[in-house]
Amino acid sequence: MIIIFHKDVTEEQIQNALRKIQTLGYTPHLSRGAVKTICGVTGDDRAIDESEFDQLPGVESVLRVLKPYKLASREFHPDPTAVDIGGTAVGAGSFTVIAGPCSVENEQQVEQSAALVARLGLKIMRGGAFKPRSSPYSFQGLGEQGLQILSSAAKRHGLSVITEIMSEHDVELVARYTAIFQVGARNMQNFALLKALGETRTPVLLKRSMMGTIEELLLSAEYVMKGGNQNVILCERGIRTFETQTRNTLDIAAVPVIKRLSHLPIIVDPSHAMGDWHYVPAASLAAMAAGADGIIIEIHPEPAMAKSDGKQSLNFPHFEELLTRLRDLAPHLGVSVR
Amino acid sequence: MIIIFHKDVTEEQIQNALRKIQTLGYTPHLSRGAVKTICGVTGDDRAIDESEFDQLPGVESVLRVLKPYKLASREFHPDPTAVDIGGTAVGAGSFTVIAGPCSVENEQQVEQSAALVARLGLKIMRGGAFKPRSSPYSFQGLGEQGLQILSSAAKRHGLSVITEIMSEHDVELVARYTAIFQVGARNMQNFALLKALGETRTPVLLKRSMMGTIEELLLSAEYVMKGGNQNVILCERGIRTFETQTRNTLDIAAVPVIKRLSHLPIIVDPSHAMGDWHYVPAASLAAMAAGADGIIIEIHPEPAMAKSDGKQSLNFPHFEELLTRLRDLAPHLGVSVR
Amino acid sequence: MIIIFHKDVTEEQIQNALRKIQTLGYTPHLSRGAVKTICGVTGDDRAIDESEFDQLPGVESVLRVLKPYKLASREFHPDPTAVDIGGTAVGAGSFTVIAGPCSVENEQQVEQSAALVARLGLKIMRGGAFKPRSSPYSFQGLGEQGLQILSSAAKRHGLSVITEIMSEHDVELVARYTAIFQVGARNMQNFALLKALGETRTPVLLKRSMMGTIEELLLSAEYVMKGGNQNVILCERGIRTFETQTRNTLDIAAVPVIKRLSHLPIIVDPSHAMGDWHYVPAASLAAMAAGADGIIIEIHPEPAMAKSDGKQSLNFPHFEELLTRLRDLAPHLGVSVR
Amino acid sequence: MIIIFHKDVTEEQIQNALRKIQTLGYTPHLSRGAVKTICGVTGDDRAIDESEFDQLPGVESVLRVLKPYKLASREFHPDPTAVDIGGTAVGAGSFTVIAGPCSVENEQQVEQSAALVARLGLKIMRGGAFKPRSSPYSFQGLGEQGLQILSSAAKRHGLSVITEIMSEHDVELVARYTAIFQVGARNMQNFALLKALGETRTPVLLKRSMMGTIEELLLSAEYVMKGGNQNVILCERGIRTFETQTRNTLDIAAVPVIKRLSHLPIIVDPSHAMGDWHYVPAASLAAMAAGADGIIIEIHPEPAMAKSDGKQSLNFPHFEELLTRLRDLAPHLGVSVR
Repeated sequence: MIIIFHKDVTEEQIQNALRKIQTLGYTPHLSRGAVKTICGVTGDDRAIDESEFDQLPGVESVLRVLKPYKLASREFHPDPTAVDIGGTAVGAGSFTVIAGPCSVENEQQVEQSAALVARLGLKIMRGGAFKPRSSPYSFQGLGEQGLQILSSAAKRHGLSVITEIMSEHDVELVARYTAIFQVGARNMQNFALLKALGETRTPVLLKRSMMGTIEELLLSAEYVMKGGNQNVILCERGIRTFETQTRNTLDIAAVPVIKRLSHLPIIVDPSHAMGDWHYVPAASLAAMAAGADGIIIEIHPEPAMAKSDGKQSLNFPHFEELLTRLRDLAPHLGVSVR
Repeated sequence: MIIIFHKDVTEEQIQNALRKIQTLGYTPHLSRGAVKTICGVTGDDRAIDESEFDQLPGVESVLRVLKPYKLASREFHPDPTAVDIGGTAVGAGSFTVIAGPCSVENEQQVEQSAALVARLGLKIMRGGAFKPRSSPYSFQGLGEQGLQILSSAAKRHGLSVITEIMSEHDVELVARYTAIFQVGARNMQNFALLKALGETRTPVLLKRSMMGTIEELLLSAEYVMKGGNQNVILCERGIRTFETQTRNTLDIAAVPVIKRLSHLPIIVDPSHAMGDWHYVPAASLAAMAAGADGIIIEIHPEPAMAKSDGKQSLNFPHFEELLTRLRDLAPHLGVSVR
Repeated sequence: MIIIFHKDVTEEQIQNALRKIQTLGYTPHLSRGAVKTICGVTGDDRAIDESEFDQLPGVESVLRVLKPYKLASREFHPDPTAVDIGGTAVGAGSFTVIAGPCSVENEQQVEQSAALVARLGLKIMRGGAFKPRSSPYSFQGLGEQGLQILSSAAKRHGLSVITEIMSEHDVELVARYTAIFQVGARNMQNFALLKALGETRTPVLLKRSMMGTIEELLLSAEYVMKGGNQNVILCERGIRTFETQTRNTLDIAAVPVIKRLSHLPIIVDPSHAMGDWHYVPAASLAAMAAGADGIIIEIHPEPAMAKSDGKQSLNFPHFEELLTRLRDLAPHLGVSVR
Repeated sequence: MIIIFHKDVTEEQIQNALRKIQTLGYTPHLSRGAVKTICGVTGDDRAIDESEFDQLPGVESVLRVLKPYKLASREFHPDPTAVDIGGTAVGAGSFTVIAGPCSVENEQQVEQSAALVARLGLKIMRGGAFKPRSSPYSFQGLGEQGLQILSSAAKRHGLSVITEIMSEHDVELVARYTAIFQVGARNMQNFALLKALGETRTPVLLKRSMMGTIEELLLSAEYVMKGGNQNVILCERGIRTFETQTRNTLDIAAVPVIKRLSHLPIIVDPSHAMGDWHYVPAASLAAMAAGADGIIIEIHPEPAMAKSDGKQSLNFPHFEELLTRLRDLAPHLGVSVR
């Protein structure tokens, strides 16, 4: 951290700041320049809150030098991390395609989806049993029954399951059925849930919230990792902007930015980002080209009849066609589709 | 709900839509116009998901007629609601000023704050014991010890306490110390928490998330109310935009918009909206002029030494000065400051 | 400007940066600290582009110390500026209410509006003859004929006119009819237009664009002022966010922020910010309470029949009622309505 | 257009609306349903302003059926349009790479850039002589001298030039030197400029503004096309959001959305979208994968010494490497790089 003082700072104000730094257990290094007086601070300053300093009398601004996250950072862990999901490594030069319905509706729908996913050579199926819905009157998911349907279809077809967890209460329950927890966008900063997941060793897919910065996403990953669970996969699923043609705005740059800042795998959710299946193939191809480690995508045997997100779900022929295109493209981008 | 068909819709597509409406238990009313074929749907359509219809073949768009929330709506409950907080009615022609420190740091700080709040004739003190912090390395609050400090200071000065709840696990614990639960912006769509609070009868202050629309805020209130707890107060605390001069952008229009759409009290948090104490007085006066039912504001005996949010906390003389200005203005806006 | 070097910067990289600073005519002041090597730069650095430095090898970040605008800044001109519009001072402890129709439609409409504005004791009437419309198929305004209608009605009632200018070509033409040029939000960064207006001495009302930061607004004012025209009034008219209940999001904090950063008058356009007349009174009162120097507001004798912006225009009785409320409130906020 | 009346609309209000529709020259088609009374309107309703109707007494909402733009729409012109730039067709199954410096600084820099662009087999060079800068103190470009430098280097190497136009005054001047006008993001809604360019037959590259919707971009294209100039290329260059890791947020979805809504070519500016050269290759590859018709990219012989945008400019080796990757990928996406 570097503290830059106002040009008219008084000696007393400088001494006051030095005292505060020492009180907090850090070492100040004062440097009186011709233009500005500046104070460097050594020690791991991640625990320091800039707001503890920038309102001190005489202080003009405070510059953080260390990134506020550590375990999630590329500096701390230079090599990319691969997260193992039931034997499939996400992030090690592969492009993982996770597919399945938005929500579990009934056995037939899940069975059909699982059969397709397996037939196409994929390894992980998505499906929601607990659904975060803006309205309490909307379909909230089948709960544990949904988990059972999902899990048995997956077993029959040799797939791993990823499903959403919405409550600390459900950690144990959901862990019995899933290979990886999905934390939805609305819970990216549900710190109680993140801490609870940090105490497990089950992998976590952490979705960026629709108004979360990339730095906040990495800090939320840090909550899980600080608890001891290093198996975190990040997910860009679109942020909220003024544009209304798509449900959200896919921040495709999040992929290379996160690749540079962090060692964690980053995948893209083109379905929620677009909100309209017409645009999902373009977004999926763009995700691969931008360097993402995979996609998580919504499919449905009959989208027009889906209980939720039908508009953004690919039907089976469209999904198969997209997968063919992704597989064609993959070797030219140095990855293989799994 | 009104379904508008494409101009080239086929008869089969129309019949398909009618079947789906009936399957869901609603009554379709078809009207074939010279320009467009349209289908009105009767029955309480709050449970219908527009996305269940707008992707049906032949459908051009779906228009929701009923608002998606009911208990929170002005239509359902035309008279404004006042919520009682330890004998103080929030929302009945009063302008409630809730003040206190961002986080509980120690006994002295809370005692000084409580003494000031009481001396100035106010009734509710804020103070955080569980702090939602973007970084796991930031100060996370004193937990139950903080609640005890808060609660005993409040008792000594005859004040009610409002404090944040971050986890379903803590509902019982926090309820022992607080007169009203505060749900922070990051938890506005933590539906598990909202449902848990809906089962209590303790009032809830629900903050709009930095990415939340007004409609989503009302739907989150609906989650609490649907559980049986009608004591909800809404809070506008600034949304996230591209502007960086302030921490967030105070959406002052949320006040008259919510007044028109809902019967629930709406207060403003000028401290988090501004992020800089210099702008807090202007924002507070604007909130009153816009028709808010009150403000929740951060004060600190020595802001420069605060453990969090010092930059946006008013010191005691500035707060007292602001309160004087609010009290001068109040009668000319038809409210009284409490 | 302060340049902060990476911790592993080489001596060659430092010397390279020093050379670049000197080449540009500034004086570098190097300071090698225990933690960081830093270089202060003296000389008026407003003309330096940070991007000229922050990509230099070895540079970690560049901190601007001087604000990028000068003539518009409070530091350069500590006392608030009042701008004279036909004998009415905008910004000198007054709260100026500018009212009139969105666009000039016909003589009768303008005559009625002018008569009302004058009867209510106001001095400046708005009205558009050149309309910036998103669609080329929308009503584009009456052009010079509109200016004539506006100007003669204003003369009959002793009012000054404010009207929008959209093109450098029209500067002379519009100047013949108006007391003050209005630069619309879409032209806030039409630098050619700003430069042309800087060469006149006619006052300019500069609206913040829906995507413009406060700093960019002040820089656009600087374009006009650098040309020699110091008569600039700023206008906050709402920014674009994800919220859809209002047409734009009124950034009410822009008022105190601009008051602190600049000496120029700042007024609010509650009509465009809200987009719905129901919310215009609340926004107007909030503007006054936040410290604005006035409002510019749309009225119409029969809003439902307006050619543009009818939804956000107040009818005459509602406007008169609002004015009464503003006049009641004004003395308690230390201003007088003009 | 479809007008939907409130459920409690009076007969008089309905008749009033019908009269207004007829007065404007359209034909109303009333349909009284069991749930709602609705009125379809026939005739080309692009010139109707929804705001002329949605505030009529008794009207609940107004639904536009026709898209507000026509000449730019895919419905009007189903086949994709290719725009000829000096013999190079942009948009006909090609992926056009336009490269060059942000601003023309001197002959050597432009000569080096032109030589590289030509050597790599590309056909169009970018370069700014009139620079839109937020600050009046920043480098504003070399003006006509810059155009001359650009034009003669291009001629020497058989390239076409694209350069920015900022003012209606300069149309004739710039047309003498350029094969295609570039309209910058800040001028997307400078309607006077758009109209002036509509009167020429020189192609126009129209950049989306940083807070412009896709619909507004298409409407701005419509301004040019309505004037008679059909040679419009659209450009996505990033929108403004809360995220700060990149200069803007590249809305990659704009590519497939525009492909569906319009027949005009759409290219991507990865340099301005990212603001950091590290992310430019990923964004360029993503643009191609998403179906863009090309990119316009900033390169510089020595980015660290650039007068503007050095941080986001690729140096020559990086650019050559990117081009190789694009050329490798192109056949697998069905396009050829030109």
